[in-house]
Amino acid sequence: MTGTHGTAGARAAGEAVIDLNADLGEGFGRWQLTDDDALLSVVTSANVACGFHAGDPSTMRRVCERAAGLGVRIGAQVSYRDLAGFGRRAMDVPPDELADEITYQVGALRVFARAAGSDVSYVKPHGALYNRTVTDAGQAAAVVTGVLRAGGTLPVLGLPGSRLHEAAAEAGLPVVAEAFGDRAYTAAGTLVPRRSPGAVVLDPDAVVARSVRFARDAAVTALTGEEITVRARSLCLHGDTPGAAELARRVRAALEAAGVRLKAFA
Amino acid sequence: MTGTHGTAGARAAGEAVIDLNADLGEGFGRWQLTDDDALLSVVTSANVACGFHAGDPSTMRRVCERAAGLGVRIGAQVSYRDLAGFGRRAMDVPPDELADEITYQVGALRVFARAAGSDVSYVKPHGALYNRTVTDAGQAAAVVTGVLRAGGTLPVLGLPGSRLHEAAAEAGLPVVAEAFGDRAYTAAGTLVPRRSPGAVVLDPDAVVARSVRFARDAAVTALTGEEITVRARSLCLHGDTPGAAELARRVRAALEAAGVRLKAFA
Amino acid sequence: MTGTHGTAGARAAGEAVIDLNADLGEGFGRWQLTDDDALLSVVTSANVACGFHAGDPSTMRRVCERAAGLGVRIGAQVSYRDLAGFGRRAMDVPPDELADEITYQVGALRVFARAAGSDVSYVKPHGALYNRTVTDAGQAAAVVTGVLRAGGTLPVLGLPGSRLHEAAAEAGLPVVAEAFGDRAYTAAGTLVPRRSPGAVVLDPDAVVARSVRFARDAAVTALTGEEITVRARSLCLHGDTPGAAELARRVRAALEAAGVRLKAFA
Amino acid sequence: MTGTHGTAGARAAGEAVIDLNADLGEGFGRWQLTDDDALLSVVTSANVACGFHAGDPSTMRRVCERAAGLGVRIGAQVSYRDLAGFGRRAMDVPPDELADEITYQVGALRVFARAAGSDVSYVKPHGALYNRTVTDAGQAAAVVTGVLRAGGTLPVLGLPGSRLHEAAAEAGLPVVAEAFGDRAYTAAGTLVPRRSPGAVVLDPDAVVARSVRFARDAAVTALTGEEITVRARSLCLHGDTPGAAELARRVRAALEAAGVRLKAFA
Repeated sequence: MTGTHGTAGARAAGEAVIDLNADLGEGFGRWQLTDDDALLSVVTSANVACGFHAGDPSTMRRVCERAAGLGVRIGAQVSYRDLAGFGRRAMDVPPDELADEITYQVGALRVFARAAGSDVSYVKPHGALYNRTVTDAGQAAAVVTGVLRAGGTLPVLGLPGSRLHEAAAEAGLPVVAEAFGDRAYTAAGTLVPRRSPGAVVLDPDAVVARSVRFARDAAVTALTGEEITVRARSLCLHGDTPGAAELARRVRAALEAAGVRLKAFA
Repeated sequence: MTGTHGTAGARAAGEAVIDLNADLGEGFGRWQLTDDDALLSVVTSANVACGFHAGDPSTMRRVCERAAGLGVRIGAQVSYRDLAGFGRRAMDVPPDELADEITYQVGALRVFARAAGSDVSYVKPHGALYNRTVTDAGQAAAVVTGVLRAGGTLPVLGLPGSRLHEAAAEAGLPVVAEAFGDRAYTAAGTLVPRRSPGAVVLDPDAVVARSVRFARDAAVTALTGEEITVRARSLCLHGDTPGAAELARRVRAALEAAGVRLKAFA
Repeated sequence: MTGTHGTAGARAAGEAVIDLNADLGEGFGRWQLTDDDALLSVVTSANVACGFHAGDPSTMRRVCERAAGLGVRIGAQVSYRDLAGFGRRAMDVPPDELADEITYQVGALRVFARAAGSDVSYVKPHGALYNRTVTDAGQAAAVVTGVLRAGGTLPVLGLPGSRLHEAAAEAGLPVVAEAFGDRAYTAAGTLVPRRSPGAVVLDPDAVVARSVRFARDAAVTALTGEEITVRARSLCLHGDTPGAAELARRVRAALEAAGVRLKAFA
Repeated sequence: MTGTHGTAGARAAGEAVIDLNADLGEGFGRWQLTDDDALLSVVTSANVACGFHAGDPSTMRRVCERAAGLGVRIGAQVSYRDLAGFGRRAMDVPPDELADEITYQVGALRVFARAAGSDVSYVKPHGALYNRTVTDAGQAAAVVTGVLRAGGTLPVLGLPGSRLHEAAAEAGLPVVAEAFGDRAYTAAGTLVPRRSPGAVVLDPDAVVARSVRFARDAAVTALTGEEITVRARSLCLHGDTPGAAELARRVRAALEAAGVRLKAFA
């Protein structure tokens, strides 16, 4: 976790650049979840569901076409195979099987991204796989193996200091750190577990203000009051709750008003 | 169907070239079906299941690796989404959804084929989708759209004279005709429907002999006794019945003994 | 179709009794579709999805508990196995397999209905299975076989004159006819096919008025202007479109205002 | 674990009664796994897969019909929802969802058991759910809740001393202990973890001999040499490996030759 937090310091305002990512295409067949069109007008990177927790082929194609048309970067939002649990059920998948399931998902999304004149530019695990690979080195290594098998050196978007980022870096994959404007942080710079009191920032104004601080100052106030540094190249916006798209728009507007440049990571 | 049948004529033996294709990787998770290793030592083209009727990611990777290692061509064996029915249940899938499901499957297989140092070289529909697209122009067109969206100009392996081949040819995709050593033919050069008496050739010796005639003479004796011409660049071998791998080996040996060159289509 | 239509005649107002049925529990895991609570306060019969086109176990339990608490009758809304297509893709399922899939769904719902102190009181096919069994005697017979295997003599709710009703009646199962306030009828008393112009009645006031006429007079004006008789013991309300719950409430209020008694079929 | 092990003591041979259980119906659609007919002629209790890790409706019906015809007891072999992993992937399923998934599976099997003139007489978790509920009290409680919601007081077949048996007993459900002739035991009477050396007894003669000792003497020699007591009312036979059915037959024959009475638990 070295370098991801510490005493909060100011960044020169003119340098502030941030990516905005959100989960998209999380419907399945008849069911819709996210307001993809609204979010695509806000984000710079779209984490597109690949069919294992959500995301039917037609939705994948449409989201890729729209993202490509708007210049929004496309990433593979890979998941455990779990439609019934929306990928939120942690699973003990044997590493080789998990790696292959990751590769499969990247390949399935890539064909649509390329058909749309774009490409899969990064990988971000979803739900239980995201949470699990923060601390589980074995599952993290399997995800990295799967990304490597998919070819090239796709960046891995995730939590700074996670086992996933460690495994990716060791394997030579670029890692991209993200921060959450709507999540509380510990003094150590980690996320307050979701079930702890105060874990989620519910006040929209606070979410907006914290997002701007992340982007401009690489700083956040921990739940216990300390000012800490959290360096993130991307901010994660949520799209699956009522009012989410509107809040996303407000975050973007506030970032722009604060002089932050919105730009996908390379 | 013009040009696919007529009065049987001899081909110069020295020119005879044939591809041998078979369905592979048709297990799913714990379940195995085909003897992939045995078949891979016989065929020149492997129709690899892509996950919709069979084919888990790990099986797809392993089959691709072995096929690539043996120089066997890899094709996407695309299907209706139907694990419970093994893709044998004809379905009325809206064309756009079907096209996207085809694209998805090609993309998912492609990533494994490329990781193995090979590529997806052709597409062949499976089961009910194969049968349906022989006569249903709408579903055939949807499959072709899906193949086109997957990029490039992948050849479509199938029944000569099928709506699928017509749609593929119109769209500029190469078509590759296959014949069946174990199926009876009508005088018109079409397959005798599977439920009709005599539709399936059960005698292994007859299957071997008919396979050689297809490859060397482009000829077969119809169920009603006529000698007809059936031009096919590929012979389909079956791998999912007891003794199938052994019969496939016999067909290959007989073809080689008859001076037929075994070679995947371009 | 004998007896299901003819010259419109009046029913004595005091006798008018109607059931209101709607599809419920059509979410799956993270995805919701219908406003189950709102609809349960309107209908007398709940067609509960059983997991094949929609309906996860927890949703099934909750809907059964609420329906039982409100005295709403519970029916099994059985479907082709098709989550990706929401049961709207017609499928050629071998009759024995289809029968067993129907039995499975009834059994799965029954355990929740009984746990809630109620029971599965009828069966209604969903989507493509509903449409298919209007005209396809083979698939209709398979559904009936599946219902019979589930035990007892569950009534089959459906379209009067359908092959499904014929097969059910032959097998000794009660049949319950339903009508649609939002669908146009031909002079022969059948539904105007959904893709024909004017097939769907979009004006809410018209839907309400037609619903009252069905219930009170067993009558409707055909698309071509004739007054015809359509005898239905149940009216089908839709719940999966915006405003659907509100329209359902209006239909119920209008029926009550017209002196129609709302009561589930026996 | 009180009472399930200790110094090995003899049982009067005349009293020895044992149940033989095995997993059956573990195919899915086109795929077969177990030799159901062979096993049904050996066992007294059939653990029938219910569709979540294996077991399509038609297989469920056929196995129930044959079991009923042979007087073999039918149990619900419930699993995590995981066809791709054959239920061998441990999952963190929220307790309420898991309970409902268990209830669903029992209900689905019950309709086939009753149609065959029998009933679901017990519940046994499969694979990862079996292993997980040995030690995880939360998941064990969820399984018990699911069984309770299914109605009645279905016995729970499992490992003596498991959290599952504790939770079942607390809830008033009968518990039935099983032993494994092909698994090594620790001196404490627990199973040697499958990945440890010597965990699986590979020698068929040893499996037969150990099975007889379990049934006749409630005794087994631990991997570390101690003679220990393991009281089990049922022996678990495996059916999914080559030679499994033959070994099962040998175990049964040896038990009969030793004067052990084969009888399903009540």
